[in-house]
Amino acid sequence: MATALLLAHGPVRPRLAASLTDFVYQRGGKIVYHEQHVDHESSLYFTRLEWDLAEFRVPLDDLDRVFGEAVGREAGLRWRIHLTGRPQRIAVFVSRLPHCLYDIAARCQSGEWPAEIALVVGNHPDLEPVAGTFGIGFLHTPVRPATKQEDERRQLAALRERGVELVVLARYMQVLSAGFIAEYPDAIINIHHAFLPAFPGAKPYHAARKRGVKIVGATSHYVTADLDEGPIIDQDVIRVGHQHTTEDLVRMGRDLERIVLARAVWMHLQRKVIVHEGRTVIFG
Amino acid sequence: MATALLLAHGPVRPRLAASLTDFVYQRGGKIVYHEQHVDHESSLYFTRLEWDLAEFRVPLDDLDRVFGEAVGREAGLRWRIHLTGRPQRIAVFVSRLPHCLYDIAARCQSGEWPAEIALVVGNHPDLEPVAGTFGIGFLHTPVRPATKQEDERRQLAALRERGVELVVLARYMQVLSAGFIAEYPDAIINIHHAFLPAFPGAKPYHAARKRGVKIVGATSHYVTADLDEGPIIDQDVIRVGHQHTTEDLVRMGRDLERIVLARAVWMHLQRKVIVHEGRTVIFG
Amino acid sequence: MATALLLAHGPVRPRLAASLTDFVYQRGGKIVYHEQHVDHESSLYFTRLEWDLAEFRVPLDDLDRVFGEAVGREAGLRWRIHLTGRPQRIAVFVSRLPHCLYDIAARCQSGEWPAEIALVVGNHPDLEPVAGTFGIGFLHTPVRPATKQEDERRQLAALRERGVELVVLARYMQVLSAGFIAEYPDAIINIHHAFLPAFPGAKPYHAARKRGVKIVGATSHYVTADLDEGPIIDQDVIRVGHQHTTEDLVRMGRDLERIVLARAVWMHLQRKVIVHEGRTVIFG
Amino acid sequence: MATALLLAHGPVRPRLAASLTDFVYQRGGKIVYHEQHVDHESSLYFTRLEWDLAEFRVPLDDLDRVFGEAVGREAGLRWRIHLTGRPQRIAVFVSRLPHCLYDIAARCQSGEWPAEIALVVGNHPDLEPVAGTFGIGFLHTPVRPATKQEDERRQLAALRERGVELVVLARYMQVLSAGFIAEYPDAIINIHHAFLPAFPGAKPYHAARKRGVKIVGATSHYVTADLDEGPIIDQDVIRVGHQHTTEDLVRMGRDLERIVLARAVWMHLQRKVIVHEGRTVIFG
Repeated sequence: MATALLLAHGPVRPRLAASLTDFVYQRGGKIVYHEQHVDHESSLYFTRLEWDLAEFRVPLDDLDRVFGEAVGREAGLRWRIHLTGRPQRIAVFVSRLPHCLYDIAARCQSGEWPAEIALVVGNHPDLEPVAGTFGIGFLHTPVRPATKQEDERRQLAALRERGVELVVLARYMQVLSAGFIAEYPDAIINIHHAFLPAFPGAKPYHAARKRGVKIVGATSHYVTADLDEGPIIDQDVIRVGHQHTTEDLVRMGRDLERIVLARAVWMHLQRKVIVHEGRTVIFG
Repeated sequence: MATALLLAHGPVRPRLAASLTDFVYQRGGKIVYHEQHVDHESSLYFTRLEWDLAEFRVPLDDLDRVFGEAVGREAGLRWRIHLTGRPQRIAVFVSRLPHCLYDIAARCQSGEWPAEIALVVGNHPDLEPVAGTFGIGFLHTPVRPATKQEDERRQLAALRERGVELVVLARYMQVLSAGFIAEYPDAIINIHHAFLPAFPGAKPYHAARKRGVKIVGATSHYVTADLDEGPIIDQDVIRVGHQHTTEDLVRMGRDLERIVLARAVWMHLQRKVIVHEGRTVIFG
Repeated sequence: MATALLLAHGPVRPRLAASLTDFVYQRGGKIVYHEQHVDHESSLYFTRLEWDLAEFRVPLDDLDRVFGEAVGREAGLRWRIHLTGRPQRIAVFVSRLPHCLYDIAARCQSGEWPAEIALVVGNHPDLEPVAGTFGIGFLHTPVRPATKQEDERRQLAALRERGVELVVLARYMQVLSAGFIAEYPDAIINIHHAFLPAFPGAKPYHAARKRGVKIVGATSHYVTADLDEGPIIDQDVIRVGHQHTTEDLVRMGRDLERIVLARAVWMHLQRKVIVHEGRTVIFG
Repeated sequence: MATALLLAHGPVRPRLAASLTDFVYQRGGKIVYHEQHVDHESSLYFTRLEWDLAEFRVPLDDLDRVFGEAVGREAGLRWRIHLTGRPQRIAVFVSRLPHCLYDIAARCQSGEWPAEIALVVGNHPDLEPVAGTFGIGFLHTPVRPATKQEDERRQLAALRERGVELVVLARYMQVLSAGFIAEYPDAIINIHHAFLPAFPGAKPYHAARKRGVKIVGATSHYVTADLDEGPIIDQDVIRVGHQHTTEDLVRMGRDLERIVLARAVWMHLQRKVIVHEGRTVIFG
């Protein structure tokens, strides 16, 4: 079933929901999902509306314009319309730690996710064999201070060439430039190996062990120009104790990182995330 | 059953455990619990040893000295020996929020805890009726800048007079002076309504809502001169989402605070906590 | 602010949501909350709609009839309309364990909940002093086989006399008769001290210890004629290990029971629960 | 560092711990880890003792006999001594679902685990390509009623030939015969996709959805002749709600299954599990 999927948000208004569903019904669409959220503190309405395109009478190329004229503009909405039904194309950026890459590659190869890895990019060559295991191309860009600008140019060219829509930083130990980030707004997902805002920056497991915390966490978030400050998509934690060494935390943390990153990418692929003022609204 | 309970830690040595258990056996004690932990990173040995006093042949007044001479000093241990069997005496410090006070009072009154509240101290008079509900005395000390020194003197005098061994800060919105803290080393427990080290300081739920976190937490810790930096005893978290207002977080957080504070006090009352270099070792 | 609160569910229909909000707007009501859920497996629509009554032009005594004629009947809905703004009246049924009673009494007395305990009913007299601590009346009904019918008659008479709307079984170790349950449909909440459907029946902590589980739980549910089979409102769990005795499980479980029961009662008091075919839909 | 690792349990006796550590010290061994647990309900002592073999003066072939004569037999212990330092050999049994196989293969290939997959066995041929991705041999044995006996004979022959020490049932939808299980006592680990003892048997996610539970789980356990009754190694859960379809539960459950199975295999590989009377003791 081919469907269209609207993500939108704007000020609360009487009959706004009805005008959205009417837009679909009156043009022959059949609604499959309609999720809504009202933030009563800010009087904002958020929605995710999916409809069957089988008898829908608007040409898809024209859909965004038609929706804007019929509803979106007058209602003061910000929106995006996605068409479902083909695999989304992901680039996975890595350094030396393979666990998140393995996890993502398995989910794509097995068909668990409606996505395919178009390219693995590494600032070290170590994980080229892992990409090879899954038959995926690998681009090595050292990203040293002297080469960073040129390396990012090469990375972006490779992403464009392969039609990449989503960049996943799978324990990629480099900071992207603001210019790179601007090319993929709300479409770069990072996994931070701590429970943000606790322990931002490097070596969070060492810091957690030193502080004697009883719980450690991981955080997946969209990447923005402010390091470790992007909108949080998911977080999770595990209990730890005095008996765990730093090495134990690192090991136990790997499973958290895998899961918390995978959940965030899944939600993004399902178009279930809306970003608003540095926070996320996540549907169902 | 009257028991003695040794909490000790020191450098790992061959046959250290045996010398501890021999100390007890050779003097007629019967071991009830023996918990041990070795921190292999620092080569430190931690233990909690409890024995039946029924046929133990060391006068209790002399026990600390005898243990020191027989084992403790030569082994380079730091230790404390507690006698169990009588209720411990707690002071609960409060401001205006009653939920933790209710929770502690119920656990003491019902006999769930081997403890009794000797006194409730408030910097506001609001919770005097709650103390009254449980038949507990209430001391009102406003703790304004001009009166703080005198107020703390009155508080300490009242604690001494009532034989208080443990101070619980049950959402007490005041900072204790270093002098006060020195009177109760490793015997003042605070509940912080956030997942430390994330969101230290005031209004953590507001900060958490603003940052858009997907999990909020609470932390119980011993109070040291560094605010919100004391050794963590317990932490716990709950999942939250975009649908939760700040008011929801405050409400959901109350249950976390109750539980995380109660668990910490329980562990302290059971003599299951050893503090070492700003961290805690917690037995079973 | 006085509000009305509609809980309704029925088959999905185009423009159903709009007909509900129109019903309110056209009669001068101002919508405060509107939560909706669509079960796509059964094509059922569930909603919770709350509106300000300040300028609402339907007499409250007539509200149910007017809604039914205007929307409810034609739409094939099942619905209930509640008026908010006055404390709901609860009866707490107990046996010998006090922890849930203390917890509920504290939440009512402190104003955390918009509710008051109208009566405590016990099949043992043990907790009469706890009720007394909070100034609540206590009815002792032994509920022995020979007296059960008469005891339930006395219980129901006392509930009616005091206007009780919700019955909370706070570790009440007796089975209510089908006749009693029929008097309070979807308005009797029980806490079962296990993770249903695991370990139904008596002594679940002993069974859990024997089976060697690594997690124990608690379950709050509406009471139906099938014991331990009623619609689940909330569940939660804690990790346990080989080091925990049955007594430890009982102790740790008490905190779970308190919280899981309190969350269920809160959700019920907030009118956030709809029961449908043995399951619950719970709004935010 | 080559080490020996003793897992032992038996009745509590004075100086038992000292006799174990003396056994090692007196023969030139250096203790690396010593974990102990006393079950006070049954008066049983459990221990895991690991020591450096560099200067240990007992021939390894003779170690089991020497330990038995020096300590084990007289102390009434049951014990096993493992030598560490070489990868353990695993067979993974599968049906059609690939997620656990991918997860285990990634952990072995990346060196996260001190183990290698010697063979994948499938009762369907579907996952042969996944085994191929990782360069692992695949044995297809249909295990139909008529062929089961012969198929198990072939499976066991293949396991023996490849020196398999641990069998992992990674969503293998077949019941092993008692004869097969007897060949690998406490060395076959299964993942059950529910929170045992809730929802044993087939289709637990469907049953969970039908019952309206608010939490679903997964359980890893050693396989014994009683289906779904073997000693539990680990369990974990996730919260679910009315908004989740059965398909959602299946999807969310996959991540639980991966993690809970991986944790159990890790603990087994680390020799951290002792089975006693249908339960497990798990060290640190």
